Amino acid sequence: MAKPLILVSNDDGITSRGIKKLVELMKQLGEVIVVAPDSPQSGMGHAITVGDTLRIKENRLFGEEVRSYECSGTPADCVKLAKHHILKDRKPDLVVSGINHGSNSSISVLYSGTMSAAIEAAIEGTPAIGYSLCDYDPDAEMDHVDEYLLKVAQEVLDKGIPKGIALNVNFPASQSQKIKGIKVCRQANARWEEDFDQRVDPNGRKYFWMVGNFVNHDKGEDNDEWAIANNYVSVVPCQFDLTGHHAIRVLNDEWDI
Amino acid sequence: MAKPLILVSNDDGITSRGIKKLVELMKQLGEVIVVAPDSPQSGMGHAITVGDTLRIKENRLFGEEVRSYECSGTPADCVKLAKHHILKDRKPDLVVSGINHGSNSSISVLYSGTMSAAIEAAIEGTPAIGYSLCDYDPDAEMDHVDEYLLKVAQEVLDKGIPKGIALNVNFPASQSQKIKGIKVCRQANARWEEDFDQRVDPNGRKYFWMVGNFVNHDKGEDNDEWAIANNYVSVVPCQFDLTGHHAIRVLNDEWDI
Repeated sequence: MAKPLILVSNDDGITSRGIKKLVELMKQLGEVIVVAPDSPQSGMGHAITVGDTLRIKENRLFGEEVRSYECSGTPADCVKLAKHHILKDRKPDLVVSGINHGSNSSISVLYSGTMSAAIEAAIEGTPAIGYSLCDYDPDAEMDHVDEYLLKVAQEVLDKGIPKGIALNVNFPASQSQKIKGIKVCRQANARWEEDFDQRVDPNGRKYFWMVGNFVNHDKGEDNDEWAIANNYVSVVPCQFDLTGHHAIRVLNDEWDI
Repeated sequence: MAKPLILVSNDDGITSRGIKKLVELMKQLGEVIVVAPDSPQSGMGHAITVGDTLRIKENRLFGEEVRSYECSGTPADCVKLAKHHILKDRKPDLVVSGINHGSNSSISVLYSGTMSAAIEAAIEGTPAIGYSLCDYDPDAEMDHVDEYLLKVAQEVLDKGIPKGIALNVNFPASQSQKIKGIKVCRQANARWEEDFDQRVDPNGRKYFWMVGNFVNHDKGEDNDEWAIANNYVSVVPCQFDLTGHHAIRVLNDEWDI
């Protein structure tokens, strides 16, 4: 039987340590092809390139046996280009994105380029997983994730994912205790409260840096923030049908239309 | 009683016709302030500016009585800057985004900068509406939307929106028949199938334009694509908790973790 074909992308850019680690692990499970941004794309959300051109360039960043392409676009662009141009003859069996240097749990899933690559694949019906490490240090220790990262990917290759879903997987940062296991969770009710650090440039003009403070309003124990804080790997099944079905009834009852 | 404060943004940029129309209409309902991108941001999804600076500049594009700011960032950045810097002392009662020149129905909501501004506001608990006209012509006729656009905004000002929800409103393009009314809908099961138009630049290097073909798989009559095709204004309540709750049970049952 042919080995599964695994497409790897990310949002930190093709030279980041996280994608190198992800490629090394995926080589244990199948044939790997990489299509990833040529520059960092953190915070790009589900952006796509609509008013500009795209370029791709083949490279050998992951050794002679791995086909690899850097792309000028966003993570979602990379998946579209991979599926509809580079891989025209054979669709991937699995799309993985990451390992992101930083958390994509709770509300951060909306801003996440990592997850947009996974969701883009899921829209087209390919099983897909976004992996993130809750440590923003680009040199962070990562070896503690290997066992759990492979476990989730193998389960998905064996059993698939429900239709209309991509998985958002977050790993606790490395610490002295071993990870306790994997928890399937809901997205925590948390958000970023922004502050703006105002400065003056050398020409005397004002500019700002956005500074986010994470605020967790969720007291439950069935959500991703709880899982990560308690040293579990969190797995949130994310859907791309955003309809709030409960609200349809409310609006139809209350509105005079 | 003080007039409601209405924050207006968009993704086509502060000089587009759609935002001018939206400001004119909102002036009938309250005090208007504009914070919008200084350049087109279509397809930006829920992107935010994390690794770069932001600039804002006050202008008088909408007359002397409307405070207005152009911002170097994305639509989501504009809402964050408005709420946490420009409007520090008084929060808006309503955030509206648009009128987008082009549809943001069904799956396009994910790629939509227009809707990211509305969803960003909803995350922070402010009632929010994204408005889009299903006509990509920047000079498209728009006056047929006035009555329905105001109606939706007034209902929201009067009755609010369920927590965790922003409204995605799409108007049919102008045509000979009058719009039939407003339908509260679910997001249609449709997607874009991409093709890549490959060209060669004057230096002999390949580049691509992404070309999307919209494919509607949905046979139902309770979704936004059906509503628009049948000359209704579609209103989809969109949530930002992406959890696919049904899938949590499936994964817990099937996975060996």
